[in-house]
Formats: sequence, C-alpha cells, structure tokens
Amino acid sequence: MSIKKILQRLDERNLDAYIITHNNCFLGQDISDKENKIRKLCGFSGSSGMLVVSKKGCFLFVDGRYELQAKKEVNLSQITIVHQMPNLNNVCALLVENGLMRIGFDGWCFSIAEMQSIKLCYENISFSDVGNWADGNTPDMLQIKERETQYSGEDSKQKCQRVFKKLKDLGADYCLLTAADSVSWLLNIYVRDLPYTPIVRGYALWNLHTKKITLFADNLQSDILSVKPMYKLAEFLHECNKRIVCDFGTTPLRLLNPCLQHVKDVCQELKAQKNEKEIWGMNMCHIRDGVAVVRLLMWLEKNWQGKTELDVVQKLHELRSEQELFFSESFATIAAVGANGAVVHYQPNEATNKKLEQGKLLLIDSGGQYMDGTTDVTRTIALGVPADTEIDYFTQVLKAHIAVADAQFPFATTGQRLDALARAPMWKKGFDYKHGTGHGVACFGNVHEGPIGISEKNNYGFNEGMVTSIEPGIYMENQFGIRIENLYFTQQQENGFLKFVPLTRVPIDKKLINVNLLNADERNWLNGYHEAVYYWLQKRLNAEEKKWLREACAPI
Amino acid sequence: MSIKKILQRLDERNLDAYIITHNNCFLGQDISDKENKIRKLCGFSGSSGMLVVSKKGCFLFVDGRYELQAKKEVNLSQITIVHQMPNLNNVCALLVENGLMRIGFDGWCFSIAEMQSIKLCYENISFSDVGNWADGNTPDMLQIKERETQYSGEDSKQKCQRVFKKLKDLGADYCLLTAADSVSWLLNIYVRDLPYTPIVRGYALWNLHTKKITLFADNLQSDILSVKPMYKLAEFLHECNKRIVCDFGTTPLRLLNPCLQHVKDVCQELKAQKNEKEIWGMNMCHIRDGVAVVRLLMWLEKNWQGKTELDVVQKLHELRSEQELFFSESFATIAAVGANGAVVHYQPNEATNKKLEQGKLLLIDSGGQYMDGTTDVTRTIALGVPADTEIDYFTQVLKAHIAVADAQFPFATTGQRLDALARAPMWKKGFDYKHGTGHGVACFGNVHEGPIGISEKNNYGFNEGMVTSIEPGIYMENQFGIRIENLYFTQQQENGFLKFVPLTRVPIDKKLINVNLLNADERNWLNGYHEAVYYWLQKRLNAEEKKWLREACAPI
Repeated sequence: MSIKKILQRLDERNLDAYIITHNNCFLGQDISDKENKIRKLCGFSGSSGMLVVSKKGCFLFVDGRYELQAKKEVNLSQITIVHQMPNLNNVCALLVENGLMRIGFDGWCFSIAEMQSIKLCYENISFSDVGNWADGNTPDMLQIKERETQYSGEDSKQKCQRVFKKLKDLGADYCLLTAADSVSWLLNIYVRDLPYTPIVRGYALWNLHTKKITLFADNLQSDILSVKPMYKLAEFLHECNKRIVCDFGTTPLRLLNPCLQHVKDVCQELKAQKNEKEIWGMNMCHIRDGVAVVRLLMWLEKNWQGKTELDVVQKLHELRSEQELFFSESFATIAAVGANGAVVHYQPNEATNKKLEQGKLLLIDSGGQYMDGTTDVTRTIALGVPADTEIDYFTQVLKAHIAVADAQFPFATTGQRLDALARAPMWKKGFDYKHGTGHGVACFGNVHEGPIGISEKNNYGFNEGMVTSIEPGIYMENQFGIRIENLYFTQQQENGFLKFVPLTRVPIDKKLINVNLLNADERNWLNGYHEAVYYWLQKRLNAEEKKWLREACAPI
Repeated sequence: MSIKKILQRLDERNLDAYIITHNNCFLGQDISDKENKIRKLCGFSGSSGMLVVSKKGCFLFVDGRYELQAKKEVNLSQITIVHQMPNLNNVCALLVENGLMRIGFDGWCFSIAEMQSIKLCYENISFSDVGNWADGNTPDMLQIKERETQYSGEDSKQKCQRVFKKLKDLGADYCLLTAADSVSWLLNIYVRDLPYTPIVRGYALWNLHTKKITLFADNLQSDILSVKPMYKLAEFLHECNKRIVCDFGTTPLRLLNPCLQHVKDVCQELKAQKNEKEIWGMNMCHIRDGVAVVRLLMWLEKNWQGKTELDVVQKLHELRSEQELFFSESFATIAAVGANGAVVHYQPNEATNKKLEQGKLLLIDSGGQYMDGTTDVTRTIALGVPADTEIDYFTQVLKAHIAVADAQFPFATTGQRLDALARAPMWKKGFDYKHGTGHGVACFGNVHEGPIGISEKNNYGFNEGMVTSIEPGIYMENQFGIRIENLYFTQQQENGFLKFVPLTRVPIDKKLINVNLLNADERNWLNGYHEAVYYWLQKRLNAEEKKWLREACAPI
C-alpha cells in the first residue's frame, strides 16, 4: 500500500482522511519492524507516531523525542510534521480545523475508551471503521514457552488466585484480558516473537466459573494452553449473552459488544509490585549486564578512535550475548555521538552512522532481557578530554538524577511529584527536557511498563517493590545530548518512608563531573553508588578489568 | 437544639443518623461564630468538621490539623473523634460499617455534585433531606457596598463581559452563581458580615439575554442591585423551563431542578489571576501589614515577659487597626506558645490561654483584610535563647520554604508538584507536616481561595499573576510548632519560566537560623528577601523602628 493508493480509496469510500497508527491491535505494545505501517508509508521509524492521509495533505504527529528524527527521515514536501503528542484528540482537532469530517480508521488499532471519549468531544465527525488500509504481514507460527517459577517467583495458578480475589465481587462470568503484558504475566508465559520483548501477544478469555483460560492469537501455538484464532473471539463476543469484564483502555473498538463491561485491568497493578524472587533476579541480571557494559566502556577507552556508532552497538551486543541467561536486547541500542545525542530517541543506521570523534560526548542507551529480569541503562561518556560546558551540563544532569535517586518519600507519592524533584534544579537554570524522568520496567517483559512512572502527568502512587528508571537529560540541538539512567526498586525504610535502591551497576564517568557543583549529600550518594558497583561486579571480572573498575569507582 | 433532641427526632422520623456540617448553604465558605452548629452541639470550634448523631453514638470527623484540638474541646465520653477528612464519603463508610442506612441531612448544606457521587457509591443508603435540625440564627440586615475600581482594577461590567465570553457558546438562558466569592468578585461588591471575610453571601442569577443580574440573599439590601429573598430562587427554579448553567460543586442539593445544568464556575479561574491593580494593592497592603507585624515583633522583644497568647492577639489587632485601609483581620489570629504551636490551627481562648515562657517558641499566624488586598503571614520566634534542636528544625522549615519560594518552573506546573519540592528535604530526614504547603489568596476576599494551591492533591496549573501562600511547618506534639509563611505572586521571567515574587514584608527570626545548614543559594535568597523587606518598610518607620529592622534584616 502507498499513500497514493490510500488517497484513491478515500475517494472511493467518500471519506476525507484515514488515520494510521504505529501500533497494531495490541494497543500501547511494542511492534516488530516488519509490522511498522507508518515506516512503510513514509519512512519515519520512531517507536511512536500517528500518520493522517487526507485530501488536504499528509500529517505526521510526533512527540518531542522525535522532532529532529522525523525531519530527517520523511519527505518534507509530501508530509507535514506536527509536533504534538500523537493521539486521537490532537489528530481530530487538526482534522476539524481543516474541515475534514469524514474519517476512516482501523477499529483494531484504537481502544474503546479512546474512541468513546473522542466521540463525545467531536460530535460532528463521522468515524468509519474501514479496517486496515496499510500493509499487513503474515506472521510465522511460534511456540509459547512457560516461564520457570525460579524466575517469576509465582506460578500462573497463584497469580490467578490473587487476581480472582479482586474480581470475584464484580459478579462477572468472564474476564477478558487484552493487554499482552497482563496476559503474559498472568499465564507465566513468554515467546521469542518481538525483537526486544518476550511477551506473548494474545488476548486471554478467562471463564470465572470454570477457571478455564483460552488464549486468542493468530501466530501462536502451545502444548500447555488452549489457543484459538482471533476471529473466534470476535465471533464468541458477538453471540455472547454473559457478563464479561475487560479494560476498555486496551480493548480494540472492533471487539465492542453489549456483553462487555469496563473494569480496570488489575494485573497491571499487581504486576508492577515485584515479588522477592523478581527483585533478586533483577538484581542478578543487572550485575551480569553491568559486567557487559563495563567491558564496553573499557574497550571504548582504548579503541574508540576510528570506530562508529554502529560499531558500539555491535560490540555491546556481543558483550551482552556472552552473559548467562541473556535472551535479547530490551530495545534497539542508542549510540549517539555529539549532535546525534540531542535526538532523544536516535538509533544509528547505515545512513546516519557517525564516527566517534575526539572531544565529543557519546550517549549509549541500551538494555537486555535476561531470563531473570530486564535492564535499561544510559551512560554518557567523554571521548578524549571534554569541554568545561559539557562537564557543567553533565553535572547538572547528575544532580537531577540524584535528586530523585536519593529521595525518601511517603507511600503513594505520585510519579508527577517525584518528576518535579528532578526538574526543579534545572528549571532554576532555565532549562528542561522533553521526556519523562522515569518509567516502570517489567521483570522479563516490557522495558516500559505501566502504571507507575515518573512523569508530568503520572498520578499513580509508588508502593514497595516497584521498579522504575530515573533518567533526566539535557539536549542541545546540533551540539550534544546528555542522559544518565539507572533502574531502581522501591524499598520501605525503618521510618516507614520509601527509598529507591539501585539495580543498575555501571560506573558514571567521573571525567564529566565538576565536583565543586556537588554538595556533600550528592558526593556521598555518588561514592556510595560506585562502592556498590565495585562490590557487586568485581568477582566477575579479570585482574585488568578489576583494576579499571576500581579506578572508575574510586571516591571523589 | 441538643444532641438528645436530635436523637429523639431520629426516632420520630424512623432514621438512623443525622449529619451536621460545619458550613451552611454557602458551601466551602467561611461562617461566623454564631452560625457554628457543630460548636453549639458539642463544643468543637475548629473551622472544618462533620458531626454525625446516630443511634450507635456520636462521631466527630476532623482532619489532621484538629486532632489535638478536638480531643481538648469535646466530651470524649459522649463523642468519638474520627481522624479522617470530614467528608461525606468517609462519613458514609463509617455509617454503613455500623449498619446505619437511613440517614437524614440538610439539603442546603451539601452540594449536588457531592450527593450525586455519594449516591452512586452507596446504593443501599436511603438519604432524606429533612432540613436543618441544628439551631439556626436570625441574621441582621446588612447594606451591600460597591468595591472601588481603584482597588479592584476592573468594574463589574468589564468582568461580566469577560465571563460572558466564556459562557455565550453554551446556549444557556441563565447563569446561576452559587459560590459567594464568585458573586462578590463578579459584582464587585462587599459587605461587613463575616468577621474575617468581606464577601457577600448570596446567589446571583444572571439572565444571559437581558444581562440583568438578581441577587438572592436573606440578610442583605442594596441601592445598586436587585436583591430578593432566598425562597424566591427556589420558587423560580421550581417553575423554570429555561436552561440554567451552574456549578454543581457549590450548588446545594435543595436547589436541584431539571432546568439546571452543571458547568464549572468560570469566575473562579478568572478571579485567581490578579490584574495589575490588584497585584499593586496586594503589594501596598503587605507593606502596611508588615509595619504592623514588625511593631509587634519589636514590642514582643522588649515586653514578652508576663504576657499571654491573648495579649499578643490583642496587641497585633491594635497595631493592624492603626494601618490605613484596614478593614478587618483575615482570620482569627493564632498565637501559640510551646506545645500549643503543635496544634496546627490552635487559637487561644480564655480556657487555653498560656503565658509566654523563656526558651519557648511563639508561633503567630495572622492576616488582615485591607481595602486594597488581603494578607496572611506566619512567623515563629524564639522567646529568649532557643535550644539547638529548635534552631535546627526551624532551619529545616526555612529550607523547605525557600525550596518553593526560590523555585522557577514552567507555566501550568501543578500545585502538587511544587508541594513535593517543599517536602522532599524533610522527607529525607523522615518527617512531614499534615497540611498543604500553600493556598491561593484573594485580593480583599477569602484568605483561602481556589482553585490554585500547593498541596498533595492539587492538579491545577499555575499561571501568571496568581497569589499563593508558602507555609511549610514542623510540629512536635507536646513540644512546639514551627511554620514560616509568606504570600507570593507568580511572575513570568525573561526565559519564559514563572517565579514567585514575595508580597509579605516581615523579617524571619535569624536567632532561629543555623547558617551552616543553608547553602549559598538559600543564604542569597534570605538576604535578598530581607533587603527588600527593609527597603519597602523603612520609609514608614520611626528612627528606633528603622534601627531595629536594619538589624533584623542584616545579611547573614
């Protein structure tokens, strides 16, 4: 399919515009590269966006992270880039402004909740679910695997019992789970399907009377579970006269039927609170991941000259792959030199690939999926001798990082409150960054996991055992990008407050720190952090590596 | 009326419980002392609370501020104090728990919104609007006055035009304003009715076609406005077949009629953004108010021995009254010595009045209504030589205060985000305070004004020209209370960010500051603040006062 063909179809169907989402029917879920409809149509490869093909032009909605990247990747004479959050509300506002009122979309790609709230706001728009006009792909058949309880800490039966307790008073006959990560967590299953995420993309229909669970998916098979094709679910719902609870936030509009009732997906909340085995696994995989990243940093120190961003990506992949229990990377590695670092979610490719250069900053954001957990770490390092400005900016980012990492806070403190702690010192100097301060992370699952998160709009309260990233940054267009990211879990202190405990074990480049800008508490935090990094990694390193790490972790 | 008589009536009407609110039909609005139904029934004099008289006992709901005060004031053998926010939701939860399902209440004292949401949650409760079973009072007739535009900066006609712009697209025939402060602001009127608040307690019915406004109130008369008795409004609504918009959050259930449609009160938002005349007036009245408070502090330094809390209240009242354009205090002065300071909203009375005592802290929270603005300031001072612990705690409170006062933040930053900035350093040491960090303040109106505020749940974003208090504290039961409160307005900086500009002009007691605990930025802020205090006040002081102030404001 091409934009031209979509325009033809608009004519045939008497429509003004067609909306193409980044996601498929697993809303808010990662997709594989070959499933990327927007990329196929216009070249934009970001992991979030919305494309509108209309009679008055094509509009690509991208958020702050992708402003620069979108400009580079698309044909600007054909596509207008709209720097607004890619959501239906913003898209509809623009369409109405342009008098485009007859809109086609794919009912599998929007949630019931999203469409219902939009229809309330835009009574004059006529929406038509015309199905998928962008190319699909035929997936290969995959075998579902069961996750071992030595890693998950709990089997599916125990999880179902806990979830059932929260559902039993609703008087429903079925629970339909439509969030792929909830399905994978509840059934304790995984699959090698997506490049970076081991989750199973299927919907689970749970009979609350018989306790039997059926999985609906088109490219999966299993010895342990009953799997049926997707169309069977649509059929079942169409004929059903039972009461089915499901989360309208993750259920596609196409499945809307009178038997469905919206109830928030309780797995999301339960999944976010990791059990002891999961915390232990997260800790252990971060040690192995730390060994890989430390080896990369050492290799870079000696060998960076003449290398490119893609060499860094390749080398890091090799080093991670050597680690025990490694499953895959948890997202496409970002290795960005100098100005590329200012493109928040830049990923090098053959076209953009840059050579590492003396005096520039190198930003590396990467992570791994291990059988026992998920990692996500960003380090910014100096190639050669850094400039004073860059040192000062790096130190500001470090201060913002520590402001949250070293915070102590009451139970139920919201993500938006913690987010403000990171930004306040930056705001004071008149700058800010256009992404959240942190996101929840699964244990062997989505590297971005809800409902918790440290960001402007997040009103979800933190509880014990929750894993989040802390990753403030500073980005100077055409110059450099700096970000320092660690993962942490929350732990209750003796005084009843919560605190973040580090999971990530990678030294922070001291060449980039202006010690005079740190106060005593900040210095103590950094020294304590580095001490622990050395303690956890040293047993797994050879003599030369140990010596290097001892220096990298020496107190300031 | 007594609790005994209410119990009799419950029997007669076949009800299980009757709920008495602090407020009357002007929901969320200040009341006068003689209107305090809860105080009459059980002795509790706090400015917020809910009393439930039931067959299974009497329950007084009070929030954190009033825990200690309630214990002291009520007969604990007759009343059970419930330490929960006094709202209908908490009350209903307790009633249901005790099997009390037939509940009587006064339909004038609960908003439509509150009752509608409660009825959804508690389907099994039967609610009966049985009217007011607590004693009422017959008010005196009062003359409404017009506010001069030299102070308000805008006349009623201009304000109506601005509000009308926001209403005209709703297609309504009338706008019913039920928030007394919105009515007073829009009509640019005031009255000397409540002891601390110059607002007019009436409902305004605005014909959006003829633009005519009628005021409904039972104790008001006017030469400039048409005033009708309250029952006429109820009659009008009952027979009305027009479309009337009003805010269900401030409209009593008793007025609910099919002609009413909920629309958020737009005056609240417009009122919160002060115009230039109002900001100037706020600035000027704070200078005069500062002179009065500085004179009190000087008087205390020399004369505190042998004096009591009530002497302080009396003296401060005298000093404020001498100031030009003084109208009234803006709330009952708090003067609390030692342990009394730990009772967050303690107000001294003949029974509790304490002598000022060597080595203790004295907390004074007070404010004035002036024709050109409203003040609210808290200072905590040392009587004689303070203990080191108290100095350290005071310094912590000062640091929390400065964390917000010296913040710079983007437009639309929410109150809850700023709140976290104040608490973060305290959380780190394991303590917290059970009240908001700040509240909006009117210009000659409610000393607590919505919708902005710096507190845990406030999701309203700050804009330019908004006035708020910043008032963190630390309270140690049976020992002392510390609070430092200033008012500020928001101003846009050259870099586009917002910053708080101080309005309050009163020195902060340097005897209580451990300079070693302040960083350079904090010291700079304090010195800058004190420099401005001296600059603005000195011209209005005599030689002796000037000398005292120069010392009090000398840099640290």
